[in-house]
Amino acid sequence: MTMNATPPITTGTIHHLVPFARHLGVTFSTIDPDRVVAHLSSESGDFATIGGGVHGGALMALADIAAAVVAVLASGDPTAAPATMQSSTNFLRPVVGAATAEARITRAGRSTVVDVELTDPAGELCALVRQIVTVRPTAQQ
Amino acid sequence: MTMNATPPITTGTIHHLVPFARHLGVTFSTIDPDRVVAHLSSESGDFATIGGGVHGGALMALADIAAAVVAVLASGDPTAAPATMQSSTNFLRPVVGAATAEARITRAGRSTVVDVELTDPAGELCALVRQIVTVRPTAQQ
Amino acid sequence: MTMNATPPITTGTIHHLVPFARHLGVTFSTIDPDRVVAHLSSESGDFATIGGGVHGGALMALADIAAAVVAVLASGDPTAAPATMQSSTNFLRPVVGAATAEARITRAGRSTVVDVELTDPAGELCALVRQIVTVRPTAQQ
Amino acid sequence: MTMNATPPITTGTIHHLVPFARHLGVTFSTIDPDRVVAHLSSESGDFATIGGGVHGGALMALADIAAAVVAVLASGDPTAAPATMQSSTNFLRPVVGAATAEARITRAGRSTVVDVELTDPAGELCALVRQIVTVRPTAQQ
Repeated sequence: MTMNATPPITTGTIHHLVPFARHLGVTFSTIDPDRVVAHLSSESGDFATIGGGVHGGALMALADIAAAVVAVLASGDPTAAPATMQSSTNFLRPVVGAATAEARITRAGRSTVVDVELTDPAGELCALVRQIVTVRPTAQQ
Repeated sequence: MTMNATPPITTGTIHHLVPFARHLGVTFSTIDPDRVVAHLSSESGDFATIGGGVHGGALMALADIAAAVVAVLASGDPTAAPATMQSSTNFLRPVVGAATAEARITRAGRSTVVDVELTDPAGELCALVRQIVTVRPTAQQ
Repeated sequence: MTMNATPPITTGTIHHLVPFARHLGVTFSTIDPDRVVAHLSSESGDFATIGGGVHGGALMALADIAAAVVAVLASGDPTAAPATMQSSTNFLRPVVGAATAEARITRAGRSTVVDVELTDPAGELCALVRQIVTVRPTAQQ
Repeated sequence: MTMNATPPITTGTIHHLVPFARHLGVTFSTIDPDRVVAHLSSESGDFATIGGGVHGGALMALADIAAAVVAVLASGDPTAAPATMQSSTNFLRPVVGAATAEARITRAGRSTVVDVELTDPAGELCALVRQIVTVRPTAQQ
């Protein structure tokens, strides 16, 4: 793996490749091969559901985006294409305000297992997501 | 249950109550107590992921929105507030073009089980979602 | 598919191939390519948990056994070997007495989606299981 | 919480309370409030499936047993009754030989989230299980 030979992955790169991440305005504070931290702003109110918390669908989308990035980086091929095969979420409490998703590799491999913790602005754990992501070289698609 | 005493639930009602559904432009062609069909337009390209299909996060959000509506209607109290407790998705193939989510009640009760089929414009099954949704009277929240 | 050329699959065949099914004494009342119904006796009390109901682990095992059989039959190759990749269970109420698992194909394919309903002697739905099963020709293993 | 006032939980205690654990011959090498390690012997061959590995149903049962014990201990009331609400398993590779399940509390609370790792005799990770377990005082049942 020669990460030095490829430009680093940034929020801009991800927005370019994944229009839905750009559409949601997802930003990233950590983009490492074993840990990706992604954020959803709460300013617009666009992500709200009944009651004012962040919609569960927005949270699952945020988690899926973070999980895909960490799975690609963990594969060692930053140009590879991720595909989520399975996603399972347990919602524990509402997120009120900006949501943060921290994705970590639980098990690398052909089917990568990624665990994501969703937290609220106080750092409280609000949801747990487990995803199975396959990562394939772009040329093979 | 006096469904006649309350105005019918429409796409407009849902957009008013659930800003994220409005933000995604989700529309509904069927809103019944045992079946809700929701749609995500493909015109803008905003929901795309790498490769051009609809982002898995957008699909899970669409399914979650449809599941919540059918769970509320099945509860007999159209003013009740839904909360998704658990969501599990199996992705079978990419959705290219407009996505449709058909949500049905698998088992009503305090914890309602809702199954959602996500299909592409050709009607091909692309993902299966199972959600556990609790529905509480608004006053109790 | 030449089902006529191979002997039918029976409880005895399954017990021979799957020692754990024999160990649990699982029996089958329906063994069809789209539907398998399996039973767990309640006579011995060996499957009980705290409170006297059937242990969740025994229920998941029963469901897994039924799901594997229907996935193999649906593949058209009754000598193929099934492998469960993912299993998700929602427990709705305890099973008191003999448990029944009814497994049906939700989507055939390389990764077959099987849904299983677990019921109690009164026919009440007690748990829902969704499994992803891959089926491979025995020679390829 | 007066753990000193109650006798320690042992393999014998669990076999007494949970007949299915006794039936499977599950043993425990660690029984702590944040971590329980349970074992399934491979000597009898009773737990085998096609191909000779341990049946997925036996693995899920082992994980469920370990998860319930750790959830009860984490609740601080060793006489409380656990009920698994949801169980999700990803199978990564077959277990050949004796299986070990290590259950840890991921999030304590009314609905406790327990993560279980299933490993083979070489310590290889073979399956991941996430369970949602509710724990209620026995008197309330």
